[in-house]
Amino acid sequence: MDIIIPVVLCGGSGTRLWPRSRKAKPKPFLPLVGENTLFEATVLRCSADAGFAAPVVVTGALHLEHVEAQLPDLAASRIIIEPEGKNTAAAIALAALRMPEDAVMLVCPSDHHIGETSAFQAAAREAAALAAQGWLVSFGIAATAPETGFGYLQQGEPIPGSLGFRVAKFVEKPDLERAMGFLAQGGYAWNGGIFAFRAGTFLAELEAHRPALAAAVRAANAGGVADGHRFHPAAAAFALIESESVDYAVMENTARAAMVPAVMAWSDIGNWQALHEAQPRDGQGNAVSGRAELKDCANVLVHSDGPRVSVIGVSNLIVVVDGDEVLVTSADGAQLVGKLDGAINQ
Amino acid sequence: MDIIIPVVLCGGSGTRLWPRSRKAKPKPFLPLVGENTLFEATVLRCSADAGFAAPVVVTGALHLEHVEAQLPDLAASRIIIEPEGKNTAAAIALAALRMPEDAVMLVCPSDHHIGETSAFQAAAREAAALAAQGWLVSFGIAATAPETGFGYLQQGEPIPGSLGFRVAKFVEKPDLERAMGFLAQGGYAWNGGIFAFRAGTFLAELEAHRPALAAAVRAANAGGVADGHRFHPAAAAFALIESESVDYAVMENTARAAMVPAVMAWSDIGNWQALHEAQPRDGQGNAVSGRAELKDCANVLVHSDGPRVSVIGVSNLIVVVDGDEVLVTSADGAQLVGKLDGAINQ
Repeated sequence: MDIIIPVVLCGGSGTRLWPRSRKAKPKPFLPLVGENTLFEATVLRCSADAGFAAPVVVTGALHLEHVEAQLPDLAASRIIIEPEGKNTAAAIALAALRMPEDAVMLVCPSDHHIGETSAFQAAAREAAALAAQGWLVSFGIAATAPETGFGYLQQGEPIPGSLGFRVAKFVEKPDLERAMGFLAQGGYAWNGGIFAFRAGTFLAELEAHRPALAAAVRAANAGGVADGHRFHPAAAAFALIESESVDYAVMENTARAAMVPAVMAWSDIGNWQALHEAQPRDGQGNAVSGRAELKDCANVLVHSDGPRVSVIGVSNLIVVVDGDEVLVTSADGAQLVGKLDGAINQ
Repeated sequence: MDIIIPVVLCGGSGTRLWPRSRKAKPKPFLPLVGENTLFEATVLRCSADAGFAAPVVVTGALHLEHVEAQLPDLAASRIIIEPEGKNTAAAIALAALRMPEDAVMLVCPSDHHIGETSAFQAAAREAAALAAQGWLVSFGIAATAPETGFGYLQQGEPIPGSLGFRVAKFVEKPDLERAMGFLAQGGYAWNGGIFAFRAGTFLAELEAHRPALAAAVRAANAGGVADGHRFHPAAAAFALIESESVDYAVMENTARAAMVPAVMAWSDIGNWQALHEAQPRDGQGNAVSGRAELKDCANVLVHSDGPRVSVIGVSNLIVVVDGDEVLVTSADGAQLVGKLDGAINQ
């Protein structure tokens, strides 16, 4: 089987896990679940013995320090440093241009949690096998709730000789009623932003559907500067790239879209409540990171970077202490964290 | 009318308002309600124009610095510095020994909140008038709830020519059922620890009912050292004093116990929930001290000494930030704060 090159995307600067996640050190670089950061866990689950090559990381200058500090094998890895964020189509295209055409790349967001590594690796092998046959493969994450924050994949015909399916349709974030319909109907999975394809296949599809974007990325690559394991695309050329997601630019347009089902305890850790649910909890549903004392509490998450947190007599509550900020939110309120003054004006 | 000498007691080191209240700077010396500390408010409400002399403060060495920093007129005030805490009978007796026999003293705890100063002053004048006639007068705080944390006074016969009553009985902290009975039955008031009597009357009653205690206090006073406005009782003699409350030692034994009714928005600020209730709140019942942002909250109290506190979607919750400690408790849980590791092991 072909070796798989992980392409780890470290963009964005989510505010939904503020105040622990801040612009200068966002979510991927924090040890939110267990001892490893989400970025470290992403790289470590693409291990050599499971058939993965060393990763290509695409990031910005602001986070380069964290990437280099946290890469387990910096010497073997390659890092593409984007002058600015241009969304996923450009990031993936740049990575594709810097590897052999027939290499199979596995695109991985760096800020998700995957509880079952072996299930992930099995799905990756399946996706890579389909990618080697020219498919553009999305992981179809088993939908366990009517989430309105994710896009969905509608499963099409099975692809003979594989565990994969054609994608019948890409569905943008639905409202609650539609999402509940998807779950009731079956045959829908979450689009978790994990993709596999050959570099050459991806670039050909990008040329076909977004020729200007493809040309702009080629120019930024051609004028770029390599510096050891770092690569800096040409900034002026890069600035001209259209900002578009890989879903819009390629996946929704290609005739070769496939999906592999993935049941792997996945979470995008999209807010504090999602983090709480992704975490090991005690018999009362409580989880603690840092110093804390809990009395008569249930389903309480405490995250503190130093101060001791003492909690009495509450349930379904999240308490986060980070530097000069303290966040206290109900489980339901967790989705409003990004709208707090502190999260907006950091 | 006789001038009234306030005797302000600054003992104890409550743990129930931890972490804001700490051993080294306990409750009386913190600005818990409004801008003044409870100690400052206690002294200020005994104002000269309401007929009060400058105060006598009884405190320990640990808190002397706070007392001297917070006394509005340090030069006119007197401070008795106890070598160790010996409960209220000794503290009051020491103060009584250091003033003229016929002076009327008004004993005031320094860690209570009184919302209606003029009602307090009116009750104090009434109590002082009875004290001048040889009564030992307790303030009977109008009971507004079946509290189990206070002693109660059972009202006896009216005292002719006054608004006061004899005390039929001192009742120790009751259980909930008895407390509810008191409220239903009427004629019971809370014993708030505010007393008025002539210095000589008090000392005579102490001699009569606790001769050993009285003699020990006299010895500590006789061997003491005055240093400007400070007075240091003799430590060796002081160590021999029996530790007993003024209620047990004198008030429950005297035949001259009286009470004056006091309706004055009193609170002992006995825990964080009591503090919340004593405080001005907004239309949703929220109260904030320090930097905070509240979204979709009701009946939330935030007290922070620095960090910003952001709260979303909760009700009946108390959040306190003080140095390296964060406390989050339900309204009901507030009474358990003193049992937290942090409060115990400070």
